[in-house]
Amino acid sequence: MDIHALTRELHVKNDSKIVMLVADGLGGLPLAPGGKTELEIAKKPNLDALAKIGVQGGSIPVCPGISPGSGPGHLGLFGYDPIKYLIGRGALEATGIGFQMEPGDVAARGNFCTLDAVGKITDRRAGRIPSEESAPLAVRLREAKIPGYQTFVEPVKEHRFVVVFRGAGLEGAVKDTDPQATGVVPLLAAASDGGSRKMADVANQWIAAATKLLAGEKKANGLTLRGFAARPNLPSYEQVYGLKAAAIAVYPMYKGLARLVGMEIVSKAQTLGEQIDVLAANWSKFDFFFIHFKYTDSTGEDGNFEAKVKRIEELDAAIPRITALKPKVLLVTGDHSTPSFLRSHSWHPVPTLLVSDCCRPDGNTTFGEDTAFRGGLGQFEAKYMMTLALANAGRLAKYGA
Amino acid sequence: MDIHALTRELHVKNDSKIVMLVADGLGGLPLAPGGKTELEIAKKPNLDALAKIGVQGGSIPVCPGISPGSGPGHLGLFGYDPIKYLIGRGALEATGIGFQMEPGDVAARGNFCTLDAVGKITDRRAGRIPSEESAPLAVRLREAKIPGYQTFVEPVKEHRFVVVFRGAGLEGAVKDTDPQATGVVPLLAAASDGGSRKMADVANQWIAAATKLLAGEKKANGLTLRGFAARPNLPSYEQVYGLKAAAIAVYPMYKGLARLVGMEIVSKAQTLGEQIDVLAANWSKFDFFFIHFKYTDSTGEDGNFEAKVKRIEELDAAIPRITALKPKVLLVTGDHSTPSFLRSHSWHPVPTLLVSDCCRPDGNTTFGEDTAFRGGLGQFEAKYMMTLALANAGRLAKYGA
Repeated sequence: MDIHALTRELHVKNDSKIVMLVADGLGGLPLAPGGKTELEIAKKPNLDALAKIGVQGGSIPVCPGISPGSGPGHLGLFGYDPIKYLIGRGALEATGIGFQMEPGDVAARGNFCTLDAVGKITDRRAGRIPSEESAPLAVRLREAKIPGYQTFVEPVKEHRFVVVFRGAGLEGAVKDTDPQATGVVPLLAAASDGGSRKMADVANQWIAAATKLLAGEKKANGLTLRGFAARPNLPSYEQVYGLKAAAIAVYPMYKGLARLVGMEIVSKAQTLGEQIDVLAANWSKFDFFFIHFKYTDSTGEDGNFEAKVKRIEELDAAIPRITALKPKVLLVTGDHSTPSFLRSHSWHPVPTLLVSDCCRPDGNTTFGEDTAFRGGLGQFEAKYMMTLALANAGRLAKYGA
Repeated sequence: MDIHALTRELHVKNDSKIVMLVADGLGGLPLAPGGKTELEIAKKPNLDALAKIGVQGGSIPVCPGISPGSGPGHLGLFGYDPIKYLIGRGALEATGIGFQMEPGDVAARGNFCTLDAVGKITDRRAGRIPSEESAPLAVRLREAKIPGYQTFVEPVKEHRFVVVFRGAGLEGAVKDTDPQATGVVPLLAAASDGGSRKMADVANQWIAAATKLLAGEKKANGLTLRGFAARPNLPSYEQVYGLKAAAIAVYPMYKGLARLVGMEIVSKAQTLGEQIDVLAANWSKFDFFFIHFKYTDSTGEDGNFEAKVKRIEELDAAIPRITALKPKVLLVTGDHSTPSFLRSHSWHPVPTLLVSDCCRPDGNTTFGEDTAFRGGLGQFEAKYMMTLALANAGRLAKYGA
């Protein structure tokens, strides 16, 4: 089902404010059966107070059993079916480092490698060259110019960089030049379809020019490109929901994902407190606010149960400043679970709390996995998060007469 | 959504073992409002112990309100969308009697009938001729030969038999020859599409030859064919999940369904105890084990509430020998409900229990319909059973970066 076909038709405008507070990787697991999760153990009087007037549910990021990366995790929350809308690897990498891709741009992930005297690869990752040595090399590659096209090169980390191609007629269906083996020369960029021939041609010209610039370098005298991908063509929040949306995120990846759906990046905030300052300062200018809190995920990835508990408590402490602004709808959720127990993203439904004056409270008195999965919203696919938000904000008209 | 597009891309291999214990028709109903179901009444200390460390949910076989047969019921559990993948009647009948159809085979259900002097049908079921009299007639039909094609005839029961056609260019879109009326001659087999003309032609030749072989028979001197169907083309467990899978079933139908998805039939076991012996003996050779227990369905179909309770208790007693093998994931579920109260398959979600070290226990202390439908897995379509199993086994990589 195309949700946006419905929301494009049904959305109406009013002066309501919607806040979506995304605690990345919020969902957790107990360390042993019968135990409690990070969220359940955390002291969170403010979220528990909201639980009494709100309704909870379990948000399934993609479908049962599927653990999403940040891209599909956030697209789901934003109401973009994460199966339908794919962000290619190169585009996600560019997005993640804060590069603002324009429509028609094609991005690829680059690897520095080492080549022998006849051009055969000796190390596909250039010995994982330290970032401080690879970054100047990436910057040097900006000198490789292709007539009629713009290219942008950005360092990433160790042997990795990003290159973005801009110009007429470029498409992203181009195969990797990394042969996935040593002792052979890098592959030529090859188009997988007719529309991408120009991109393959431009890429090969660029690779030749860039490789020349690396001639004589000891640690990295060659490169390969992988994951060619055009900027995904996502309709904007304004188009599909009629919402003027702001993103208040600290990390480039989440700013980038928000930008792809047409949110405005309003924040240079570095702390949650500063993020709330930005929220308050921009309150009158937007309809929808996406606030991203990273540390529930990073502590989960670290396998640090106690640290994740503390981060949830930090989040809880920020709630009163949000509710003081009196949003019509407040959503507290995550893009996926990151249980400390697993030290990774997981498939488990994400505890989700929705508060509005018409949310039909479900009688819970605390916010947690156990209450959420038995909550009034049931378990639902994340892609319905936005229709629920819009409905609670009075921003969706009746479907059919 | 094509689940297998995801699992083909995301599955990874490890040394985990997954056991899916299917109690056919497990779900039930109370005999009166306020009462308990067969599963809830049964004394099942082992399943209840698993409930404390596991998570429950309600598995919806097809979609709400739809009662499946064994075919779609099991396809769903195996992760094959039962709406997308159809097993035609003839192919299911052949499968059910243990005939191993090969790709390209077309099967049809046969009915013996009686014909009058001018070939018009007088009884469409040959008076439901007893099996001991019809079986030799079915065997005699093996003498009907069509040049260039192989035919296989197997008795089923009373007036029913199965015929399988093998040879180049056969397709299954052929209409029934049973006119669904007496006083008329059997229809000619007619192709519904161009690709099935050869099959229709071969069927007509075979019907003519077979009918000759019945000339003069008092009880059954004619036949009709119904439900022409090619062997369904299902991708294998190895292809879609990367799993080497074993089926430990007693009845031909379930062995046949498992074979269609590429499971290896490892068992000549006749009792549940023998099935567990086979499980233990094959533990190191497979990644996935499907164990089928028939009697929760057959007692339900008999309307014998007490007998179904006893069968559930028998199943419970076998649990410790399974858990002693330490599967990474144990699923206890059913392909559908068969409430004794209804004496038939039903649409009710099937109580499902999943146990793994990362399953997020839901605080239940007993296994039953009521706990399952409020359980941590919520209610979910059976087709997601395998993604849940794979995720809990650590066999699915992250979707998207």
